[in-house]
Amino acid sequence: MSTCTVRVLACLYEKGLDFQLVPVNMAVGEHKNPAYLAKNPFGQIPALEDGDDLTLFESRAITRYIATKYKEQGTDLLRMDDSKESALVNVWLEVEAHQFGPAIYAIVYQRMVIPVFFGGVPDEEIIETNSEKLGKVLDVYEEKLSNTNYLAGDFFSLADLHHLPYTYYLMKTPEAKLIESRSHVKAWWDDISSRPAFLKVAEGMKAEIASEKLSEN
Amino acid sequence: MSTCTVRVLACLYEKGLDFQLVPVNMAVGEHKNPAYLAKNPFGQIPALEDGDDLTLFESRAITRYIATKYKEQGTDLLRMDDSKESALVNVWLEVEAHQFGPAIYAIVYQRMVIPVFFGGVPDEEIIETNSEKLGKVLDVYEEKLSNTNYLAGDFFSLADLHHLPYTYYLMKTPEAKLIESRSHVKAWWDDISSRPAFLKVAEGMKAEIASEKLSEN
Ligand SMILES: N[C@@H](CCC(=O)N[C@@H](CS)C(=O)NCC(=O)O)C(=O)O
Ligand SMILES: N[C@@H](CCC(=O)N[C@@H](CS)C(=O)NCC(=O)O)C(=O)O
Repeated sequence: MSTCTVRVLACLYEKGLDFQLVPVNMAVGEHKNPAYLAKNPFGQIPALEDGDDLTLFESRAITRYIATKYKEQGTDLLRMDDSKESALVNVWLEVEAHQFGPAIYAIVYQRMVIPVFFGGVPDEEIIETNSEKLGKVLDVYEEKLSNTNYLAGDFFSLADLHHLPYTYYLMKTPEAKLIESRSHVKAWWDDISSRPAFLKVAEGMKAEIASEKLSEN
Repeated sequence: MSTCTVRVLACLYEKGLDFQLVPVNMAVGEHKNPAYLAKNPFGQIPALEDGDDLTLFESRAITRYIATKYKEQGTDLLRMDDSKESALVNVWLEVEAHQFGPAIYAIVYQRMVIPVFFGGVPDEEIIETNSEKLGKVLDVYEEKLSNTNYLAGDFFSLADLHHLPYTYYLMKTPEAKLIESRSHVKAWWDDISSRPAFLKVAEGMKAEIASEKLSEN
């Protein structure tokens, strides 16, 4: 259920890496225990441990680390051999973080987190404001994606990958229409969400949603 | 007055680079004109043009581009020769963007932007909520900075630099106490804000605030 963990998993699978997933039981506050705070002082998941002496947190820093360390393996996610391509990947990574992220987060939070985790009712006003914001951002994407197949150019990159977790959940809400009504955005979504690496992660996401619904009944 | 432009300027000065600053007249909506939208489709400043064929936007993507392209010149801001150091720089870059940024932005917006630009009254409730959030983030910084001189380690990096613009304005508000009440955070702030590169930028920021106040009267 952790979108930020999904982001890291998708990256690990794109690179074909072996890893161990260690669950953190947030329901009992394990993420605020001293043992976990030593890994991430902000008490949030995910964190990554690599070897004996490196612990990282913040999902987008973790994916960048993986994409850099395993540059030569699997999908080339940062295009570091071409300074122009890599600069454009970085631009669209920031667009995800600062333009797309806040708006889609607000919608998914209202539509999924509030009802599923807190048994509450979504605030339609927040959804409306943020749908408008997200729509404007997606208008820019539509234009961009009518010129190139992916956000940073004609290659799949970490910038596209970072969009996967929240958009996956958005597509299960009425606001999926924000994607579906824009043909180039829709084609891009169909493409990036059907990559084998993400299909593997999405399997787990489906199971989580199903068991969450079950435990609701 | 543009904090995001300040971030880029501080980086250019750390690198000792020549550049041309082209003002965009936001008061008349120049940032939403087709000519500017061709540089940044989101209609925000800053944008960077380098040579004939590269236009970038998003301040944090621009600084990363500069720090990478001019790796060997001026301050080493990304520590790319050491994979562990560079991973930690990236972690704290994300902390600035996702933990520190949203809270301090809300405070500075209420205390500076609303009264100075819109002649309005700050919303004290928003300030209080975000002061509490920022305080919690700064508690983590205080602990971190009691162990290392800078956020990512014992070296000044792009992660520290990205904190300069908003903190500079925060220090002119009553919420400066959030920094002043934490001795290691305060020492870090005194250090990074007195670097020659930032002093150069801050000169321009002072002039802007002064002329803004003048035009108010
Ligand atoms: N910016 C962080 C956000 C991480 C985050 O919000 N994680 C959630 C779970 S998806 C969490 O741990 N929430 C608990 C909390 O914030 O206390 C990242 O990208 O890793
Ligand atoms: N995430 C962007 C934010 C840029 C931004 O918000 N710029 C402001 C001026 S400091 C702007 O152009 N605002 C006008 C608008 O958003 O329409 C960045 O870091 O470059």
